Amino acid sequence: MRCKIRVILALIFVQVLIILLFWSLFKNPELFEPKISIFSSQNEKFETNRSEELLFKKILCNINGEYNISCRKELDEVYIPFTFIKKYFEIYGKTFEKNNVEFFNWSHSYANVYVPKKQYDPRGAFTHFQSYKVEERERVKCISAAEGVPLSTQWDSNGYYYPTQIAQFGLSHYSKNLMEPNPVKYIHENGENVQAYWITPYKSVVKRIYDNDAASTVFCFNNTEKKFIVLKSNFSLPILSFNLKLKPNNISRFVVTVENIVEKKIYYIHYICNSQHILIADYDIYYGLFCEGKSKWYKLSRDILIDLQKGIMLKTKSKTKLQRSSFKILNISLKGEGCIDNLTSLSSDHMTQFQLTVDWFLKHQDESTGGWPNPVTRKMAGSLILKSGWYSAMGQGHALSVLARAYFVFNKEIKYLETARKALNPFQRLSKDSGVLAMYMQGLPWYEEYPTNPPTFVLNGFIYSLIGLYDLHKLAPVGYSHEPYMLYVQGMKSLKKLLTSFDTGSGTTYDLRHVTLGTAPRLARWDYHATHVNQLYLLSSIDNDPLFSITAKRWLGYMYGKRASHN
Amino acid sequence: MRCKIRVILALIFVQVLIILLFWSLFKNPELFEPKISIFSSQNEKFETNRSEELLFKKILCNINGEYNISCRKELDEVYIPFTFIKKYFEIYGKTFEKNNVEFFNWSHSYANVYVPKKQYDPRGAFTHFQSYKVEERERVKCISAAEGVPLSTQWDSNGYYYPTQIAQFGLSHYSKNLMEPNPVKYIHENGENVQAYWITPYKSVVKRIYDNDAASTVFCFNNTEKKFIVLKSNFSLPILSFNLKLKPNNISRFVVTVENIVEKKIYYIHYICNSQHILIADYDIYYGLFCEGKSKWYKLSRDILIDLQKGIMLKTKSKTKLQRSSFKILNISLKGEGCIDNLTSLSSDHMTQFQLTVDWFLKHQDESTGGWPNPVTRKMAGSLILKSGWYSAMGQGHALSVLARAYFVFNKEIKYLETARKALNPFQRLSKDSGVLAMYMQGLPWYEEYPTNPPTFVLNGFIYSLIGLYDLHKLAPVGYSHEPYMLYVQGMKSLKKLLTSFDTGSGTTYDLRHVTLGTAPRLARWDYHATHVNQLYLLSSIDNDPLFSITAKRWLGYMYGKRASHN
Repeated sequence: MRCKIRVILALIFVQVLIILLFWSLFKNPELFEPKISIFSSQNEKFETNRSEELLFKKILCNINGEYNISCRKELDEVYIPFTFIKKYFEIYGKTFEKNNVEFFNWSHSYANVYVPKKQYDPRGAFTHFQSYKVEERERVKCISAAEGVPLSTQWDSNGYYYPTQIAQFGLSHYSKNLMEPNPVKYIHENGENVQAYWITPYKSVVKRIYDNDAASTVFCFNNTEKKFIVLKSNFSLPILSFNLKLKPNNISRFVVTVENIVEKKIYYIHYICNSQHILIADYDIYYGLFCEGKSKWYKLSRDILIDLQKGIMLKTKSKTKLQRSSFKILNISLKGEGCIDNLTSLSSDHMTQFQLTVDWFLKHQDESTGGWPNPVTRKMAGSLILKSGWYSAMGQGHALSVLARAYFVFNKEIKYLETARKALNPFQRLSKDSGVLAMYMQGLPWYEEYPTNPPTFVLNGFIYSLIGLYDLHKLAPVGYSHEPYMLYVQGMKSLKKLLTSFDTGSGTTYDLRHVTLGTAPRLARWDYHATHVNQLYLLSSIDNDPLFSITAKRWLGYMYGKRASHN
Repeated sequence: MRCKIRVILALIFVQVLIILLFWSLFKNPELFEPKISIFSSQNEKFETNRSEELLFKKILCNINGEYNISCRKELDEVYIPFTFIKKYFEIYGKTFEKNNVEFFNWSHSYANVYVPKKQYDPRGAFTHFQSYKVEERERVKCISAAEGVPLSTQWDSNGYYYPTQIAQFGLSHYSKNLMEPNPVKYIHENGENVQAYWITPYKSVVKRIYDNDAASTVFCFNNTEKKFIVLKSNFSLPILSFNLKLKPNNISRFVVTVENIVEKKIYYIHYICNSQHILIADYDIYYGLFCEGKSKWYKLSRDILIDLQKGIMLKTKSKTKLQRSSFKILNISLKGEGCIDNLTSLSSDHMTQFQLTVDWFLKHQDESTGGWPNPVTRKMAGSLILKSGWYSAMGQGHALSVLARAYFVFNKEIKYLETARKALNPFQRLSKDSGVLAMYMQGLPWYEEYPTNPPTFVLNGFIYSLIGLYDLHKLAPVGYSHEPYMLYVQGMKSLKKLLTSFDTGSGTTYDLRHVTLGTAPRLARWDYHATHVNQLYLLSSIDNDPLFSITAKRWLGYMYGKRASHN
């Protein structure tokens, strides 16, 4: 009996002991740790968390006495949430995984700099424009069928010819042509030795005849039937290059039928004698040739995907880029009356696109002023206005780069030089006299991308204009090279004096409007800043003033968070 | 029996249950939480930590692809350690406690801006200089006994008269005099109706006689004994003001005996006919009067604590500031031969210190040029040199502020105006001709704080020079006010054109050296930036061009992390 009571008492005692033991552990969690490290010795992360659990806590951060955010504190270190940093400093960052471990990438800027490996050559690629895809830009409404150059919507949603953009289109294709492999091409029909199998409806006529204007035998059609004359095909979207002459009416057309093989949708891209650059109705996209009542030859070199994309964008406002591999051309078809020649599909057709650009510049220069007008009114910096018809030093300069290259590659024809010579005139005239010349503080000549009054002294446009002058000076023969040289030298002198005025110690300003307007500076976003750096590296390869390479290096540093020193 | 066995079994069962319960809790710590929230419901912080312990982990942050730091991650938020942010962006921060809760204060800048409440008045305080303590600055070697103005060690450790600093000393005392209550003062000895009890050794002679130079009855002594003539005292360190004439030899002196009542150390401050500004030997500090063999009257107004501090600093190189309450003056004692008058102790003596400053400017102007030379060579920005003897537009302008105020408060004496008129000359002369005038881009006149070649266009010094011109224009009568007005107007015109050139979009530059030298900009540290903002607010109160108030507001915003927009 006693012994059993003893057993009961002992059991109760042990029970109390166990309760006390757990209770003490419960009240002092740090006593857990050694146990945990035994039980979970293979899970280091878990262990770490446990040992630090009480060291990490929330703490309010008061930002400049203005507002609070929730931070963390661990021992003596305060941790600031990146979402705050990102907004406060405009820093970029994201997490990524590598070998199942998570990392965080902190980027001071999002832009890239192309440090040139060799001296700039005006016969070569234009800076790093081989990476430009002008036609893909959202601000390009479409590539004009009549001219083969882009139409901008930057300052007018109707679309207009923007000489700067057109030149960039041409220069990018010129540069791509040098950097990319030769295109694969397939001739479908040339009216002579290569003849396609056209399915021709009853009563329709097709014939291959000599055309005086084309100075070649061409393929002509006359089809007033409902059915089209059809050339069946089955290839993914290439560049379609062809010469086209249509009878100027509403019926005659060249149509490309395209299928979205994923969504099983069919689109029709019409090239017609219309006077609207682009029109869309359901699945029909119309590119107008602006025939103006005349039956004449057009050279077309169409990136069918771009033509389709621009139509869809116009209809749906969607910015999603189409996948080239999701489409194929079902057929090419003809209606009404007209002729075609040299119908070819190519993997690329850069030099035709460059040629079309050059033709545009030859055709659209104002004979009296030498300028290519920007046919759109532009408002800037709140109070500044450029009235429709203004010239841009950047547009003029880019045109020089285009024309100098055209002279070099297209048989050194004098017409390119004559056009280029005239294009120098606006560099000699002040902005108020419809030129592009401004004077910084009455003393330093500057070629204005936007020739406002007061001037704004945009940096990148000025440097591009200097490169244009340099290109012409270098590629033109005696008699044509002196004037651009003098303008280049004068501009370089100003640039050297003003370059560091754009330096904020942690980046650059886009222009000097803060000086002329007395406002806040317009900071250059990182891609413009990178353009500045790229341009300085280019200049440092053609001018041995160390200012360019030293400044380029410092400005590159700003993209990695470096800063100028303070006193 | 059975029943007891049942009790034992039941107890064992309960025991096992308890063990299982705790064990399950132990293995699944999240089960703790509801219990904890019961047990520690008043300790919210503890509860929070426990619930998040597993969500918080270490993550490596790669900074611009250059190096890694250790960050933290909690759910989708990445936390960046502040010690990194602090260094990367130069941000200031510290933790503090309030009601037992820890907070973290994030400060974009460390400086203060004084937004003036009313229009600037040239008769009033000079900007916010009442808060300046020029004599306490480490770069002030000591206050000269001979002249009563500071000696700078900024560019020469031997000490030299730096007109800009001397003017700031005077202007700060002028401003303090207006903003502080009237001083408490006690006259010890004036040779006439107030006579002190001087303990005079045997054979020493003291007498009160009329002195022609002082035009007053004064207290004279002749004591060649080893013992001093002593006036016992027992007060904490005040300003000691007195007139002193000593026989020019090594013996004659006025000595203040000071005790550090905490450390029980005794110091002797000697004012003697020495030709060294300050000398220290053990506990003796010597201030030289530069008598140059002549027996003449000096006006002294000495902050004894400053005189002691400068001596100790010179000896120990310690920068620790002395506590006024730790010291008292034990006695004033005299040796050799000399006279004193108006021996007074005061809680402050700002107007005497201002008067001594004014006297310095009257005495030390170069008659032929109107300038106060900086007797020290200065190297700047790597390559620029100012040869000893250069003038500063800031020094000249500050002198105008001093002299205009002196004219206003000291009986409108014409000598102040004559000196001020001559001081305008360097504003008319180009830097290369020993003036302070530079031209920005050959067109905009600028008054140079440092008239280097090429110029640097320091902003704060230029604005101070404009304020000096404004002060003189406003306080001088017809005949003296036109010339400073024209210089002021011309300078303001330049300032308005160039002000925003100093704007980096997130702060300001100290000068425009980046433009003239083609280097990186010299960013203004936050206290200089705050000076810019203060100056703009002052200017906006005297010129109604909105440029000043708009720019001041924007620049103030930069101190809170605001930035200009980018394109």
